[in-house]
Amino acid sequence: MATVALIEYEDAAPAVRAVYDDIRAVRGTDFINNFWKGLANNPEQLRRTWEGVKEVMAPGALDPLTKELVYIAVSVANKCEYCIHSHTAAARAKGMTDAQYAELMSVIGMAHSTNGLVTTMQLPVDEVFLVRP
Amino acid sequence: MATVALIEYEDAAPAVRAVYDDIRAVRGTDFINNFWKGLANNPEQLRRTWEGVKEVMAPGALDPLTKELVYIAVSVANKCEYCIHSHTAAARAKGMTDAQYAELMSVIGMAHSTNGLVTTMQLPVDEVFLVRP
Amino acid sequence: MATVALIEYEDAAPAVRAVYDDIRAVRGTDFINNFWKGLANNPEQLRRTWEGVKEVMAPGALDPLTKELVYIAVSVANKCEYCIHSHTAAARAKGMTDAQYAELMSVIGMAHSTNGLVTTMQLPVDEVFLVRP
Amino acid sequence: MATVALIEYEDAAPAVRAVYDDIRAVRGTDFINNFWKGLANNPEQLRRTWEGVKEVMAPGALDPLTKELVYIAVSVANKCEYCIHSHTAAARAKGMTDAQYAELMSVIGMAHSTNGLVTTMQLPVDEVFLVRP
Amino acid sequence: MATVALIEYEDAAPAVRAVYDDIRAVRGTDFINNFWKGLANNPEQLRRTWEGVKEVMAPGALDPLTKELVYIAVSVANKCEYCIHSHTAAARAKGMTDAQYAELMSVIGMAHSTNGLVTTMQLPVDEVFLVRP
Amino acid sequence: MATVALIEYEDAAPAVRAVYDDIRAVRGTDFINNFWKGLANNPEQLRRTWEGVKEVMAPGALDPLTKELVYIAVSVANKCEYCIHSHTAAARAKGMTDAQYAELMSVIGMAHSTNGLVTTMQLPVDEVFLVRP
Repeated sequence: MATVALIEYEDAAPAVRAVYDDIRAVRGTDFINNFWKGLANNPEQLRRTWEGVKEVMAPGALDPLTKELVYIAVSVANKCEYCIHSHTAAARAKGMTDAQYAELMSVIGMAHSTNGLVTTMQLPVDEVFLVRP
Repeated sequence: MATVALIEYEDAAPAVRAVYDDIRAVRGTDFINNFWKGLANNPEQLRRTWEGVKEVMAPGALDPLTKELVYIAVSVANKCEYCIHSHTAAARAKGMTDAQYAELMSVIGMAHSTNGLVTTMQLPVDEVFLVRP
Repeated sequence: MATVALIEYEDAAPAVRAVYDDIRAVRGTDFINNFWKGLANNPEQLRRTWEGVKEVMAPGALDPLTKELVYIAVSVANKCEYCIHSHTAAARAKGMTDAQYAELMSVIGMAHSTNGLVTTMQLPVDEVFLVRP
Repeated sequence: MATVALIEYEDAAPAVRAVYDDIRAVRGTDFINNFWKGLANNPEQLRRTWEGVKEVMAPGALDPLTKELVYIAVSVANKCEYCIHSHTAAARAKGMTDAQYAELMSVIGMAHSTNGLVTTMQLPVDEVFLVRP
Repeated sequence: MATVALIEYEDAAPAVRAVYDDIRAVRGTDFINNFWKGLANNPEQLRRTWEGVKEVMAPGALDPLTKELVYIAVSVANKCEYCIHSHTAAARAKGMTDAQYAELMSVIGMAHSTNGLVTTMQLPVDEVFLVRP
Repeated sequence: MATVALIEYEDAAPAVRAVYDDIRAVRGTDFINNFWKGLANNPEQLRRTWEGVKEVMAPGALDPLTKELVYIAVSVANKCEYCIHSHTAAARAKGMTDAQYAELMSVIGMAHSTNGLVTTMQLPVDEVFLVRP
């Protein structure tokens, strides 16, 4: 059970409805997922977060599927069950194939392993990696 | 300072040299970074890890640059300084542009933020996300 | 399901009952929550932990509600579902308003975001921050 | 060394200078810390982050010092060295006493400990904690 | 619900069956747990992971029970519910007593606490600890 | 640089000196490491933490070296540089061989990897693991 009420469209204040309407328009669906319904308890944070997500996840120098793969990876490392499910579903909706998902999982598993090994050994960074644009 | 000795090619046992030689051949460079020099204290783990990395990071359903972006994302969430530097350098070597890096950073920042918000609210996963191939 | 038995007052050894009695006295309620029932498998750890919690969470230079807010923040970052629920309930019992909770959540979300951005960039600490009393 | 260039006021584009100017005005100091200089590589993210921080950290239902204590707590749990130093300095600048800092540290230590114990035992949440406004 | 299908022996490709057969032979049981059934969506990763686990968890300089205790400790710190349950069960199967489990829990709790305290204080490492074989 | 002053024996209050004296007596050395010098800013927390560590790390159902190995594992997963160095040194002082350390590292690496894989797949816990004494 959530620590906050999940606010439905019918019960929402105008400022919340405006964000819900924009989510629906941008995503082309009437569905509003629980993340927004929870954030709606704080309309200003709802608006700020949605503006940020809309901007950050839009196509740009990285394509939307790549962004979802990165989002899954962070959510796994941060152990956010809801986020893992929602962004795995989003990645599938954006065309992630089973083969891509299998490779994503391999990279995530390998990164966790070498992260753990490196941290155990407390390795100094090789000079050559300290490049900067 | 590392908790283990960093083993140079000159001081390495034949089993370690064989891995170093393969790393050099696959990567087309003589450079061996500290990660492998530390792992070389346990030749069997060195071999197993290198075989895994070689397989996982090879081009496949995901291209090598996408895999590096995912690797950076996991390393950030896992707070592994060495890994962040080495995989950021690797991503640049594989063609990551400044614009791509800026967007990667935006996605990582956004994912951390929503991970934290979702965890605070302890949100139940929407049914619709529980899809499976 | 827990990995340990949850020990009820009726089944508890005298050393455990003594702690349960003190918890009830200090908190002014008969309710003993699962955390203590699980710890009771190790009476010495139960006693040590309760003594610590009683001391640390008492009013002092920081008021009890502020301490609960900090406890929630740590529990979220550490992804401890039980702890998030129990300390959110405790904060409400100590007077946390909806407006305070909304702001707490905003700070937690912002901190996660900037933590992720800073770690990605591997920023050196500004000299001016290295102050000490 | 950071993975990005730190952009000074003199070298900054107008969009970046506008944010720097606002930071200076709001904080009443000419000092711009490395966090903003790194983010300035992506002016849009710089602007969005600063707007968020300004809004979130302003006085409200929680006072600014309480917000800094929460920020420190999250940064510790997320192991962000830069963030720990910068927000500890900020908390001191906002009046945090040594006694308050000592208690903050006690709460952070206790929370980490009980988070670990609860996670080890995989405790079910007590029904009574599942309250909601 | 898992994000992947759990592949049963009957539905498995020959490469997967070969790994399942080896797991059964090495463990002396017909039971295949969900971890392997999930990994089986990527037969190559299934094989690589099983080969690694078999090698790493075998008796060596450390006995198998000690290895399980370490595995539990990492899984707790990484907040992996499935892993905590499976390795706690494995440790019990390998002879972990209630007294050993209670002490394991005490060490895990203490380590989390001092990790949090040290990170808050950002302590420099004492020279004397920087030993190396 | 630490966020607190490191308090030397000469400058310490009697309550702090008493703990330092006990640390020296129990460990059979005059050396006081930075962890205690930092905690000494809060004498009550210093005392409580030392009493806990002394009790938890003493020989019992688990031997002291096993406890240090668990401590290293938690400290790695929690990314505490100081803790990793101090407990790796402590494990060596208690007899940890290079072969044992190599195996510890293998288990830590493997656990991180499977933790990441399991979390990605969001696997349900097998019924058979839900055992309890």
